[in-house]
Amino acid sequence: MWLFRPRRVAPAHCDLPCGVYDPAQARIEAVSLKAIAQKYQASSDEVFRQRCVCLKEKRAELVKHHLWVLRTDYFKPVHLARFPQLHDLFWRATQEAGEAKN
Amino acid sequence: MWLFRPRRVAPAHCDLPCGVYDPAQARIEAVSLKAIAQKYQASSDEVFRQRCVCLKEKRAELVKHHLWVLRTDYFKPVHLARFPQLHDLFWRATQEAGEAKN
Amino acid sequence: MWLFRPRRVAPAHCDLPCGVYDPAQARIEAVSLKAIAQKYQASSDEVFRQRCVCLKEKRAELVKHHLWVLRTDYFKPVHLARFPQLHDLFWRATQEAGEAKN
Amino acid sequence: MWLFRPRRVAPAHCDLPCGVYDPAQARIEAVSLKAIAQKYQASSDEVFRQRCVCLKEKRAELVKHHLWVLRTDYFKPVHLARFPQLHDLFWRATQEAGEAKN
Amino acid sequence: MWLFRPRRVAPAHCDLPCGVYDPAQARIEAVSLKAIAQKYQASSDEVFRQRCVCLKEKRAELVKHHLWVLRTDYFKPVHLARFPQLHDLFWRATQEAGEAKN
Amino acid sequence: MWLFRPRRVAPAHCDLPCGVYDPAQARIEAVSLKAIAQKYQASSDEVFRQRCVCLKEKRAELVKHHLWVLRTDYFKPVHLARFPQLHDLFWRATQEAGEAKN
Repeated sequence: MWLFRPRRVAPAHCDLPCGVYDPAQARIEAVSLKAIAQKYQASSDEVFRQRCVCLKEKRAELVKHHLWVLRTDYFKPVHLARFPQLHDLFWRATQEAGEAKN
Repeated sequence: MWLFRPRRVAPAHCDLPCGVYDPAQARIEAVSLKAIAQKYQASSDEVFRQRCVCLKEKRAELVKHHLWVLRTDYFKPVHLARFPQLHDLFWRATQEAGEAKN
Repeated sequence: MWLFRPRRVAPAHCDLPCGVYDPAQARIEAVSLKAIAQKYQASSDEVFRQRCVCLKEKRAELVKHHLWVLRTDYFKPVHLARFPQLHDLFWRATQEAGEAKN
Repeated sequence: MWLFRPRRVAPAHCDLPCGVYDPAQARIEAVSLKAIAQKYQASSDEVFRQRCVCLKEKRAELVKHHLWVLRTDYFKPVHLARFPQLHDLFWRATQEAGEAKN
Repeated sequence: MWLFRPRRVAPAHCDLPCGVYDPAQARIEAVSLKAIAQKYQASSDEVFRQRCVCLKEKRAELVKHHLWVLRTDYFKPVHLARFPQLHDLFWRATQEAGEAKN
Repeated sequence: MWLFRPRRVAPAHCDLPCGVYDPAQARIEAVSLKAIAQKYQASSDEVFRQRCVCLKEKRAELVKHHLWVLRTDYFKPVHLARFPQLHDLFWRATQEAGEAKN
């Protein structure tokens, strides 16, 4: 999935705006999400698996949040003109993050 | 602004998904945001105005969050086919919410 | 349960106060809570059911929070004079929300 | 104000319920709130005073939250029978916490 | 465990700093954490046990957070000079809180 | 300040543990914190400056949180044996983050 490729786009994340938009924030949470899913599969401990379900929920929320921030605050009409698929790409990425909770 | 028009779309808001998506959540925060902006303008009390700035920040975040959830989780490709401007509409709405912090 | 009846009371929710108190906030979370409980009963998928338990916890907290805000900030002594059962009604409603977590 | 008197009532704070209800949680936040208000009065530094306003907002929310939890989850009908003024006492205390934001 | 011994150290918890640092905040969460773990062991109800796992996660986070705040904000070099084991003590305590999630 | 040097240490951040500890999380918030401080200095707009104060508070909290997590969860006794100054380094870094709120 493209999220895991550490290509730098640019950094930024508060509406001041502080001007710092770093895709690493979404990527780190996505890597964590994937690691939790793998640990869930590899374990047979009931409590551990329930903790995985709880934590996966939170990590997926954070992936979505960081993607939403990039989408809304970093990208400008000029980006959309050059990458017309930008809207759809982010839509699908956030939906996949939501589905990763299952 | 369209956010303030209480036209019901549909309800839903967690990734279970619980199936409850209600635009009232974004609308209530937007109405609150607008009320805070007006009270800021009408007041000359220093503490009150600083509280307005703090609270406006939070409300605008919530408007954005509720719009993001609707965008990602409620709308399906079939909606996009019928309303091709959907992506842009949500993009501009969340950007306006961010700008309302100023 | 009275929570599900969409009778408008009035709107408001921050201590500025912004003057916006809308019972829809508590109602939407309560409707979500009920939907999650029903989906839990209807499913036999282990992960899905665990997610229901996690999410129900959060939704019930939000129902309680929104009811507390209405109780504390919206209602005035004049309301209490007209509806002497107001204190008890909110007490029981928040307790029911807490019990809905089970 | 009664909040500052460290009379132990009983401890408890999650809906499990874990059975731990300790009024110290509300009291500590109230003491902090009061300290912030005093430091605001004593300072003439613009940034410091703005930080006071922000932090006071958060502390007051926490005072209210901890009081709400005690009210809803700890007290039982038997307490109400013995202390009929319980409802009103908590109502006024949470309202005062809200007003302390100003 | 030392956390459960209610020896007063001193009070404080926001970076203003408000000057209020009370170890009761960490202790109350730790007592709650322990109570949840015991209730988990004593119960055979599936939903109840899953709620224990979720809530234990949150309480352990709060124990760690309150210990971190005490460590960073309350203790000064003078304390470290008198109690050279302070760094290690807090390190082990926060690690134990993390392990209590299992 | 060392925080701004992007030397990779290792990645990880939930108590599962998921095994993902990335110092980028602390660094991104620290870079944002610094950018906000500079924008505050460069602006003479009252609302903008108040928003800077609010946002700086949040960013500094996040810097501290991410450093605490690294300190508690990533570093092991073996690291401490090799880098005896580790405790002090993190202590001073989190204190500096707290002071950056002013």
